[in-house]
Amino acid sequence: MKARITVTLKSGVLDPQGKAIQHTFEDLGIAGVDKVRQGKIFDIEIAETNKTKAEAQLKNMSEKLLANMVMENYTVEILD
Amino acid sequence: MKARITVTLKSGVLDPQGKAIQHTFEDLGIAGVDKVRQGKIFDIEIAETNKTKAEAQLKNMSEKLLANMVMENYTVEILD
Repeated sequence: MKARITVTLKSGVLDPQGKAIQHTFEDLGIAGVDKVRQGKIFDIEIAETNKTKAEAQLKNMSEKLLANMVMENYTVEILD
Repeated sequence: MKARITVTLKSGVLDPQGKAIQHTFEDLGIAGVDKVRQGKIFDIEIAETNKTKAEAQLKNMSEKLLANMVMENYTVEILD
């Protein structure tokens, strides 16, 4: 089963890399960029074929390794 | 206008970080993870309110800075 896990910073958490990207657009002459926040995606294939069990496994994988639950949120999207 | 730009490695490009994550799941005792590939997202707010112009600007931003067009693909998704 294919899935995409998206990990984003929680709203209160500073994102210095996003800020740096935002300023780089100014330097490149691209104006009107009000906000940039960076996140990560993980495109994953797992052997599990039962959708409910796959979702449970992917949540476990997110919380054990992919997301830092103190600072980050994650979403799991089953793609097939 | 809010948008999400998703940047992923082209299919032929090796992803050592994804491989490392995949092996870490084995070490954690989570079996049946066949593939992991990592990508990036950028949640962006721009001042432009015309959807067509916003898409054009976001594509330009992707190609100038956010994606390495030799190795990466990108998608632009307008969120409002």
